Amino acid sequence: MTDRIRLTIWNEFRHEKVHDSVKKVYPDGLHATLAKNLAKAGQFDIRTATLDEPEHGLAEKVLAKTDVLTWWGHMAHKEVGDEIVARVKKRVLDGMGLIVLHSGHFSKIFRALMGTSCALKWREADEKERLWTIEPGHPIAQGIGEYIELPNHEMYGERFDIPQPDEQVFISWFEGGDIFRSGCCWRRGHGRIFYFSPGHETYPIYENPQIIRVIANAVRWAAPLVNMPSDSCPNTKPLETIRSKRKS
Amino acid sequence: MTDRIRLTIWNEFRHEKVHDSVKKVYPDGLHATLAKNLAKAGQFDIRTATLDEPEHGLAEKVLAKTDVLTWWGHMAHKEVGDEIVARVKKRVLDGMGLIVLHSGHFSKIFRALMGTSCALKWREADEKERLWTIEPGHPIAQGIGEYIELPNHEMYGERFDIPQPDEQVFISWFEGGDIFRSGCCWRRGHGRIFYFSPGHETYPIYENPQIIRVIANAVRWAAPLVNMPSDSCPNTKPLETIRSKRKS
Amino acid sequence: MTDRIRLTIWNEFRHEKVHDSVKKVYPDGLHATLAKNLAKAGQFDIRTATLDEPEHGLAEKVLAKTDVLTWWGHMAHKEVGDEIVARVKKRVLDGMGLIVLHSGHFSKIFRALMGTSCALKWREADEKERLWTIEPGHPIAQGIGEYIELPNHEMYGERFDIPQPDEQVFISWFEGGDIFRSGCCWRRGHGRIFYFSPGHETYPIYENPQIIRVIANAVRWAAPLVNMPSDSCPNTKPLETIRSKRKS
Amino acid sequence: MTDRIRLTIWNEFRHEKVHDSVKKVYPDGLHATLAKNLAKAGQFDIRTATLDEPEHGLAEKVLAKTDVLTWWGHMAHKEVGDEIVARVKKRVLDGMGLIVLHSGHFSKIFRALMGTSCALKWREADEKERLWTIEPGHPIAQGIGEYIELPNHEMYGERFDIPQPDEQVFISWFEGGDIFRSGCCWRRGHGRIFYFSPGHETYPIYENPQIIRVIANAVRWAAPLVNMPSDSCPNTKPLETIRSKRKS
Repeated sequence: MTDRIRLTIWNEFRHEKVHDSVKKVYPDGLHATLAKNLAKAGQFDIRTATLDEPEHGLAEKVLAKTDVLTWWGHMAHKEVGDEIVARVKKRVLDGMGLIVLHSGHFSKIFRALMGTSCALKWREADEKERLWTIEPGHPIAQGIGEYIELPNHEMYGERFDIPQPDEQVFISWFEGGDIFRSGCCWRRGHGRIFYFSPGHETYPIYENPQIIRVIANAVRWAAPLVNMPSDSCPNTKPLETIRSKRKS
Repeated sequence: MTDRIRLTIWNEFRHEKVHDSVKKVYPDGLHATLAKNLAKAGQFDIRTATLDEPEHGLAEKVLAKTDVLTWWGHMAHKEVGDEIVARVKKRVLDGMGLIVLHSGHFSKIFRALMGTSCALKWREADEKERLWTIEPGHPIAQGIGEYIELPNHEMYGERFDIPQPDEQVFISWFEGGDIFRSGCCWRRGHGRIFYFSPGHETYPIYENPQIIRVIANAVRWAAPLVNMPSDSCPNTKPLETIRSKRKS
Repeated sequence: MTDRIRLTIWNEFRHEKVHDSVKKVYPDGLHATLAKNLAKAGQFDIRTATLDEPEHGLAEKVLAKTDVLTWWGHMAHKEVGDEIVARVKKRVLDGMGLIVLHSGHFSKIFRALMGTSCALKWREADEKERLWTIEPGHPIAQGIGEYIELPNHEMYGERFDIPQPDEQVFISWFEGGDIFRSGCCWRRGHGRIFYFSPGHETYPIYENPQIIRVIANAVRWAAPLVNMPSDSCPNTKPLETIRSKRKS
Repeated sequence: MTDRIRLTIWNEFRHEKVHDSVKKVYPDGLHATLAKNLAKAGQFDIRTATLDEPEHGLAEKVLAKTDVLTWWGHMAHKEVGDEIVARVKKRVLDGMGLIVLHSGHFSKIFRALMGTSCALKWREADEKERLWTIEPGHPIAQGIGEYIELPNHEMYGERFDIPQPDEQVFISWFEGGDIFRSGCCWRRGHGRIFYFSPGHETYPIYENPQIIRVIANAVRWAAPLVNMPSDSCPNTKPLETIRSKRKS
């Protein structure tokens, strides 16, 4: 581990190319906006990677030098190669942190790590969302206060089909009458995973300083302490004398 | 749901055909022994299924009529078809209970539901194992007392790469100096999953009345209360009037 | 354990005597309403107990014959004797179920079992509450559907100072902009505890069939499987020969 | 928060005065040994406090300047004043870290925070203990490796009557045939709590560098991020207009 956290920001980068409403908000892709704003928010060595690069920008050597990966995808989840998903999953289990953003709830990588469908309710109604801080003492909530208010956002609602979070940091209120577990932590293998729901592509959510602060906090929280294989299955010698052996 | 639990006992059924040491212990396959002993232990409608049957004995219509599935596999995990694994996983998320036994820790279905490698330490040294009851008030521990002692067993040891169990029912002591989380519960989707480590193929573990009692308890615990899709992702209407809409 | 669950409904029974607005809703005390409606909802042997009875109606012999206790209190938490609280707590740890209702969040018994302050935000603004079902597969949620709507209720909001629930069954949406973890499960000792927030004394909440259904489900879920002391601290003999002893 | 963690080491300091076997191991009290060794292990501003000091050395102003408190007690748990226990508990809920050592499992403060009896099995048989690292990626396990071996120790065994830990870092194997959840984390209010079982008073356990390393790691892990009251119960204004009000 270096002192500076090596952060890779992954973005599907398709909506920004084909939808004018998105291009207007994120002209260089939302990875570029995240990179720009996270650079101001922490001691991070940042690179970006996108779906249409070779190996989706996630070559072995890139992942080997990544402490924390953020993931935003939506319309092309199915185009992410299974081999790359397996590679990212192994890196998480070996210690790399993973921050899954918004529609990334339905990404192959998040579903593979959760073991559930990760389905949810949704609605595009331009409504108000308020993310309540459930655990103010949690590292990811530092500096946030009682809640974050988003004046207009896509609704994500329960039931969200996830394993119960190890730590529930935020729960959202929606104007249209729904609630949502919007900030959730899990440990898997030696890695830490944070799901954070804000970030619909038609709103400039990743320009919001509080949202960026949460993501920066999460990057620091998810940075690995160890980096070792979690998937060996060693045959080991006994540490104590065994006296129970059956006569053969 | 009927009053009687519909239990399907799945067994790889390979060791029993090729290894004399196993054939001696389980002449008709360990599924047959499990079926015989579980029939005495509960109000179960039991069927069995094995790897070499068409669709591994797990056709859609079989799973649709299965409340709880037990899974034992070892040498042929890779031969289980991915399509069947996806089918079983969907059934678990929709509500079916799953009891994973012994070397089933490395089955595709268990790994897919856990999201981790499910690796562990192991040793065949014929040593004593003692399973301590950690939660005597848990349904799966009813009638067991302080511990179960197995005079000789394969050692499974930590670290076991699993998500922290929702409920830890048993932890094992091994004569050779290791410990193991040997009875673990999780909820995933609408389904319940229990991993139980006893059952190496060269010992008559599934003739042990206490082991059978735990499995029968687990079948009752895992029987579904609901049976509904967990993976829809519905677009929903607001329940309250939305006044925040942006002017376009 | 008998087949029928022995249920004791405890009520502070003070508001109903001094506030006309409450007397109008619960003329015989809210324990009487709960008893009447729960009698229709399950196979329960019901008794009631109130603060002003000797030993608050919770003599040793009453508790010894109680499988599940429900608790409603508000204005007189401090008048509950510490000895009675210790007695109830011991019974819960030994296996008795406990259902804590509404303002019971600040009762001595709930705070003693949680170890936290159990503080929350609140507001009496006659607003709409919608309790979303987070775990439809949970026994306590059976028959409820997606949500319960209360047209007018007191607001209870986050942060609710509780240990993270072992199982989160309901989360509430409030018209005034708040959310609340309104249905929470914990295991403590051999006992099970459910906190359920509906039930402000000025609304006929305990006449609502869905609310009664949740409480009846919770009574069945919390009924003990074992009844044994959790607080002995036995000196035990080794089960294996100890060879490491230091020379003295 | 200052950069250096302000650590208060609390010790009952009675055994060392009355038992020669303990005085020999900890001539100045085990708090002195812990202070000496923890001073080498981290950037800590250390003070000690003992039972027989006024207010047990835990005056309001001491606690106000304490980020993390370690607690060792055994023969005189009952002499700790209830008012001091309430004061320490409030500080933990407000953010202070608490490390409970060995026989501190039966201290008033630990029991008050857990809500359970905290009873366990025990045996003084001079036997070997091996603490297995269950979560190598956890901050408290850094630098420890697969296990810590104690050649001779008092046995603490299951069932340990605690709420299931939020994170299980160590589980112990004992030569005499028992296992024990020996390193356990919980969050309560804004504070973090770690229970660590090594440290019987007749063995020089707190001279063991690995044990000291775990405690130093735990102090860093438990250091508070926030320091704020967790027990206010504010009446709040609605954030949204309420339209559902009943006509009166």
